[in-house]
Amino acid sequence: MASPAVPPVTGSTPAAPLRVEIWSDIACPWCYVGKARFEKGLAAFAHRDGVEVVHRSFELDPDRAKGDVAPVLDLLARKYGRTREEAQAMEETVAAHARAEGLDYRTHGRDHGPTFDIHRVLHLAKARGRQSGLLDLAYRANFAEEASVFDDEVLVKLAVAAGLDEAETRGVLADPTAYADDVRGDEREAAELGANGVPFFVLDRRYGISGGQPAEVFTQALEQAWQDRAPLKPVTSAAADGATCDTDGNCA
Amino acid sequence: MASPAVPPVTGSTPAAPLRVEIWSDIACPWCYVGKARFEKGLAAFAHRDGVEVVHRSFELDPDRAKGDVAPVLDLLARKYGRTREEAQAMEETVAAHARAEGLDYRTHGRDHGPTFDIHRVLHLAKARGRQSGLLDLAYRANFAEEASVFDDEVLVKLAVAAGLDEAETRGVLADPTAYADDVRGDEREAAELGANGVPFFVLDRRYGISGGQPAEVFTQALEQAWQDRAPLKPVTSAAADGATCDTDGNCA
Repeated sequence: MASPAVPPVTGSTPAAPLRVEIWSDIACPWCYVGKARFEKGLAAFAHRDGVEVVHRSFELDPDRAKGDVAPVLDLLARKYGRTREEAQAMEETVAAHARAEGLDYRTHGRDHGPTFDIHRVLHLAKARGRQSGLLDLAYRANFAEEASVFDDEVLVKLAVAAGLDEAETRGVLADPTAYADDVRGDEREAAELGANGVPFFVLDRRYGISGGQPAEVFTQALEQAWQDRAPLKPVTSAAADGATCDTDGNCA
Repeated sequence: MASPAVPPVTGSTPAAPLRVEIWSDIACPWCYVGKARFEKGLAAFAHRDGVEVVHRSFELDPDRAKGDVAPVLDLLARKYGRTREEAQAMEETVAAHARAEGLDYRTHGRDHGPTFDIHRVLHLAKARGRQSGLLDLAYRANFAEEASVFDDEVLVKLAVAAGLDEAETRGVLADPTAYADDVRGDEREAAELGANGVPFFVLDRRYGISGGQPAEVFTQALEQAWQDRAPLKPVTSAAADGATCDTDGNCA
């Protein structure tokens, strides 16, 4: 194993997947709509099998306490200084956008609350390969159904329906530190990347797309990012110290 | 929330972290040495606090069956057609490189075996923010101590010492599907990036470094990659559909 040569980086054929990171919050209606639009845009992209999608955490209201759950209409009326009727009309507008994407949207009786625990369970789901499925179920529960995603029992049911283990999910919910660093880390990276709202889409850390744009915008951005993919540049040195072990078990 | 303007991507100030991915195998002596050299190179890098390191899986012998554990010296003798004395001399050479980095290296009685389960537990550790710590303990056990990392009980002890939950670790070991996709996914990406041996270092998916190079090579590559970081290019559209929700709770 002495004096090994530096093996070259053999290039990127076939190339690495195009990595799409999507920051979103379950309480954000445009994230619900935006996920559907992105997926439509992805379905129309020729190299869709070469795309890897990762969902990342972003809380709209990170300081909100557990259990602080209130009707969405009250929040809208207070935040925008509108009457209840005007708030209701705002919800109807979002609902129309959602329905145009084939998504159900319940405009009465929805709640608004903290999403930290939902994000922690979404990170568990990520570790188990169930992230996108749980996100769909949680969006559906929050925007289209009677279920409150701010209720731990509902969250456990959604997690189990997404294929997670019930005891493991309850363990994560019971331990506020579980996946907490993952949530905070995602949020720190969003800020570092310049995102101040969601949904926020990042393609190969090269392109940023803010908002639930039309599907064609995503398809075009995917095409652009795909063309821009470059092989890794090999870093080598004159020193003969960069030994490796290969899959034949050779360490020489 | 009707007719929202497309919010601009506000740029990358402060920029996102420089992401370093390190593919390695616990059975690879150059990965043990390479991790120490990389960390020395990182320590000498001015912007080290802006670097995020992720360890990824690479099995030198992915088809090896659980329990197929044999002395390293036998493997070396067979693979290179050497006598036991020559195999011993090869181990001494690696040991000298390790010791030059301040790492202990045991040249007698080491075992070689399958590393799939170790990688699965390392992915659990990643999910719990304990990956680098467990990797250090596993390297140390395999290369410097009497403990066999191919023994589940030893692995559980190392995981607990790294801060993982014992029951959770045993659960992962007992379920061969747990984190299996993560291991296979890492290996697929390594192949896609052109890596045919480890350690393999990838900086921001831009630069590839093959082998446990001297620390200065890593420092220089980090400096180059840091300079090359570019802000995200914003993708916008003429359509007024890209609505977002921000951290003030505004979805207008």
